[in-house]
Amino acid sequence: MRFDVLTLFPEVIKDNLNYSIMKRAVDAGVIEINTINPRDYTLNKHKKVDDTPYGGGAGMVLMPQPYVDAYDAVKKLENSCTIMLTPQGETFNNIICAELANYKQLILICGHYEGFDERIREIIKPREVSIGDFVLTGGELPALCIIDSVSRRLEGTLGKIESMEEDSFSDGLLEYPQYTKPRDFRGYKVPDVLLNGNHKDIAKFRYQQKLERTKRRRPDLLK
Amino acid sequence: MRFDVLTLFPEVIKDNLNYSIMKRAVDAGVIEINTINPRDYTLNKHKKVDDTPYGGGAGMVLMPQPYVDAYDAVKKLENSCTIMLTPQGETFNNIICAELANYKQLILICGHYEGFDERIREIIKPREVSIGDFVLTGGELPALCIIDSVSRRLEGTLGKIESMEEDSFSDGLLEYPQYTKPRDFRGYKVPDVLLNGNHKDIAKFRYQQKLERTKRRRPDLLK
Repeated sequence: MRFDVLTLFPEVIKDNLNYSIMKRAVDAGVIEINTINPRDYTLNKHKKVDDTPYGGGAGMVLMPQPYVDAYDAVKKLENSCTIMLTPQGETFNNIICAELANYKQLILICGHYEGFDERIREIIKPREVSIGDFVLTGGELPALCIIDSVSRRLEGTLGKIESMEEDSFSDGLLEYPQYTKPRDFRGYKVPDVLLNGNHKDIAKFRYQQKLERTKRRRPDLLK
Repeated sequence: MRFDVLTLFPEVIKDNLNYSIMKRAVDAGVIEINTINPRDYTLNKHKKVDDTPYGGGAGMVLMPQPYVDAYDAVKKLENSCTIMLTPQGETFNNIICAELANYKQLILICGHYEGFDERIREIIKPREVSIGDFVLTGGELPALCIIDSVSRRLEGTLGKIESMEEDSFSDGLLEYPQYTKPRDFRGYKVPDVLLNGNHKDIAKFRYQQKLERTKRRRPDLLK
């Protein structure tokens, strides 16, 4: 899969490619990540990409010209989806993630400051996605969240170290409690059922724990 | 405010401090960020921090010893809150963000791989927070989201470039559409009301747009 990220801070995206799942997915040839800086496309002689809002108000608004021209310059593959990261979008979750993993290209548009001139939305007509009901300085962290979670779903990214099947939300429930060595840590012990080798009992215990935990913490997921 | 981040990938946190709001908040002395690597605390001779799960299953589980000992080594300030980043936690939002901004210290515990040995939860008793119903490789991106959004709320972080009051969710509604120069871009025009200088009309227009947009996109917020 190819990710094209429109951002005023390409280093934030590139720095994160040095680590973890994204590095592994890039090294394995599963994903390719490209950044495009709207500042390189501005026709403003001072290289400005933002200006004050019409109608007044604090903050700076991203101008349509640099963003739309930068977007136009991105080569679009056949099976492509354009996403604008904005708190006003639909809330990202595991279901949207699975859907996005079917594309061959995701074009991610990151804002900054007070946000986008409305005409960027009107012209590009992106799918608008938010990672949650909170405000960040820019769309870079949300874009990285999407790249990370989508990449995990692509064949060839996860090795034996992680497994997707047992993650939270994979079956609509939270994950069961996990235990590893030692058996006794500061008097806190691993539950006996996990040590007796009876796979049926273990499966039953884990499923009960999942249900109970989801019921207690996130009853909304059970609906 | 002081942030102490327990992470196996301290570079991910540090790299992001070079940019944007976090850099500005650090430079202004509003926040201080410290990282602690549980790997530096493991008593395992091969420096391991994870092991296979009791009861079987794919993936590696983070061992209690390195995490609990690393946590014990963090100097706790008087008004401190410990947060574990996990998909099983309460969903982070603007209300929790405002609450967290009242602390003098946030200790953020980032997981990785299949997750934490359950005893890390039992012993540390952290507040468990998720940034959304999707799965990431580690808690670093969520920790950065929390640092970014909390820092924005601290006095001295935001200058004239951004303003918090007009952000989405600040009054429970999505933001109104913003427009900046030029007045006409590719035939798409700025609404007249924003150009006529009548502040009462502008305020009315913007409020209507907020309501309409929230109703259409996020009716759940109006409840």
